[in-house]
Amino acid sequence: MSTPQVAVAMDWGGTWTRTALVDRQGEILWQSRQPNPKEGSKEEYLQIAESLLSEAVDRAAGPIAGIGAAVAGPVEPTTGTFHQPPNLMVLDGVSFKELWEPRFSLPVWVGNDANLAAFGEYHYGAGKESNDNGQPVKTLFYVTVSTGVGGGIADNGSLFLGANGLTGEIGHTVADPTAGGLTCQCGAKGCVESLASGKAIGRIARDKVASGDHPGSSLTALPTASVDASAVFDAAEQKDPLAVSIIDDAVDALSIGLTNVMHLFNPDMIVLGGGVTDGLVRLDLLPWIHRQVRGRAMSRLHGEFQLTSSRLGDSVGLVGAAAMVWQQAGEKP
Amino acid sequence: MSTPQVAVAMDWGGTWTRTALVDRQGEILWQSRQPNPKEGSKEEYLQIAESLLSEAVDRAAGPIAGIGAAVAGPVEPTTGTFHQPPNLMVLDGVSFKELWEPRFSLPVWVGNDANLAAFGEYHYGAGKESNDNGQPVKTLFYVTVSTGVGGGIADNGSLFLGANGLTGEIGHTVADPTAGGLTCQCGAKGCVESLASGKAIGRIARDKVASGDHPGSSLTALPTASVDASAVFDAAEQKDPLAVSIIDDAVDALSIGLTNVMHLFNPDMIVLGGGVTDGLVRLDLLPWIHRQVRGRAMSRLHGEFQLTSSRLGDSVGLVGAAAMVWQQAGEKP
Repeated sequence: MSTPQVAVAMDWGGTWTRTALVDRQGEILWQSRQPNPKEGSKEEYLQIAESLLSEAVDRAAGPIAGIGAAVAGPVEPTTGTFHQPPNLMVLDGVSFKELWEPRFSLPVWVGNDANLAAFGEYHYGAGKESNDNGQPVKTLFYVTVSTGVGGGIADNGSLFLGANGLTGEIGHTVADPTAGGLTCQCGAKGCVESLASGKAIGRIARDKVASGDHPGSSLTALPTASVDASAVFDAAEQKDPLAVSIIDDAVDALSIGLTNVMHLFNPDMIVLGGGVTDGLVRLDLLPWIHRQVRGRAMSRLHGEFQLTSSRLGDSVGLVGAAAMVWQQAGEKP
Repeated sequence: MSTPQVAVAMDWGGTWTRTALVDRQGEILWQSRQPNPKEGSKEEYLQIAESLLSEAVDRAAGPIAGIGAAVAGPVEPTTGTFHQPPNLMVLDGVSFKELWEPRFSLPVWVGNDANLAAFGEYHYGAGKESNDNGQPVKTLFYVTVSTGVGGGIADNGSLFLGANGLTGEIGHTVADPTAGGLTCQCGAKGCVESLASGKAIGRIARDKVASGDHPGSSLTALPTASVDASAVFDAAEQKDPLAVSIIDDAVDALSIGLTNVMHLFNPDMIVLGGGVTDGLVRLDLLPWIHRQVRGRAMSRLHGEFQLTSSRLGDSVGLVGAAAMVWQQAGEKP
């Protein structure tokens, strides 16, 4: 019997570059990672990625079906060209496909990490689990609530990519259109990301502590630099009123974004991932979010969706990138 | 040469039931319509629709490819079963497909009118015009701004239907989450429909006139029953300050909905239809809406979409229903 094929997967985030070998069942057979240099040059970034990829290719026991890369930022789906990635700006205009196909003599496919996370959860995560339990999923919306907020859509087994592969950006939907809405890093006011991301939760907490209006909060005892989303979740777990109110506001903003997703995409499953989601799960807030969103449904059928947390956790980008390889190589994932 | 095939199309709205014969080029060869009875029974509604369909079938000069029906309300795309249509509630649970396939010995396909409007504009309206001008459209989002507000998505030549065919409901996305947000007929607060629909514009205008705070407005001279969206647009055209401010607020709400659509669907074309859109076109407000939405784009590529008004006008449902027939019959529209 011949050795089964493997996919080489890469997940290029703002902080880490990771690679893995993944089989057709979505199992990670081997993986490695390296931190990205702060303020690194394009050449430094690419050198790290290529050395990780070379290692993965060398480790493969069987034939390689191709290389799939999930990248943190907008990417053109056909050419795999990076388009102004906010956290990796030195890579603007770079096409991994053009760079690496000749370098590795393998087919290369590139996708946005949140889109591929949706694809991974659909084929190998929460969607597959639901299928296996006799409740097939047709339209899955994945939301990453992390340092930033992003998303992606898998529909009928494929990615929904829109005109340029830039779909699912729930982080930049509007949750607070009032004049007092916080300004987002995108320049607009009141985006979900400016109210519910990890970065936003930390910033809002530091502002509230600095205002001096909450002397009783345990957050005031921390050095300013330690007041981040993680500290807010810790304090909320201890029922600190300031921390609880900050998380409540973030949940309200996220619920507005999810209400819009429910009415626009009519998903039968919404999957939440990312570090902030881990905090929401610790506080057992997912059922509350589910109720809030369903309570706004314009029809009973719109409200009939599952809301669950990511099954693939940190590996969702790698597994999603591998799922893309299997699909593109003509092997249904 | 044999006579070319035709499609029988039906558009079942809240006010009129219309039928037509449509050729493969999307041209309407013949059409007829009847008003729906107010508070009619299920049998009355069906009798009108069936007599219109019989007439269309009799009039067809060539072979009929099938019957396509666009209906005002949620409809299950496979079985064609109506699901709690707010304006045609007596038809809840009725499947036109089951009723009419044996009755007419023809294949029957049913779709939501806003979804099919997107499909019609994609293949025979604004999307086709852009294609013919060398700018192919991949993802088209259609919005009807009329008595209510709805929408639909055509992507890559097909409809995006989600889990149950209930996508594109921009009317029930959130534009004003504040406590003061108006309650929508769906029960939620601050929906786009409760702020930007024709019904909402009329209601808001009547409330403002009744408040007595705007004695100088020309709207105060009208009998209350005449203060509707059409009167508000007429007054706004004459620069009546109250009417202008009401339209401005509606435009702001619509722009928030479209901003969310831009970031979630990454469309390259948004088409606005419906009676309120006619008013917005008269006031030359589409370029302003386009600028407002683009000004909120998180990236340049997100902002690169065309915004235009419907090319098919009142016929958009009929032409969309015919496009569905051609697609389902295996004839690319």
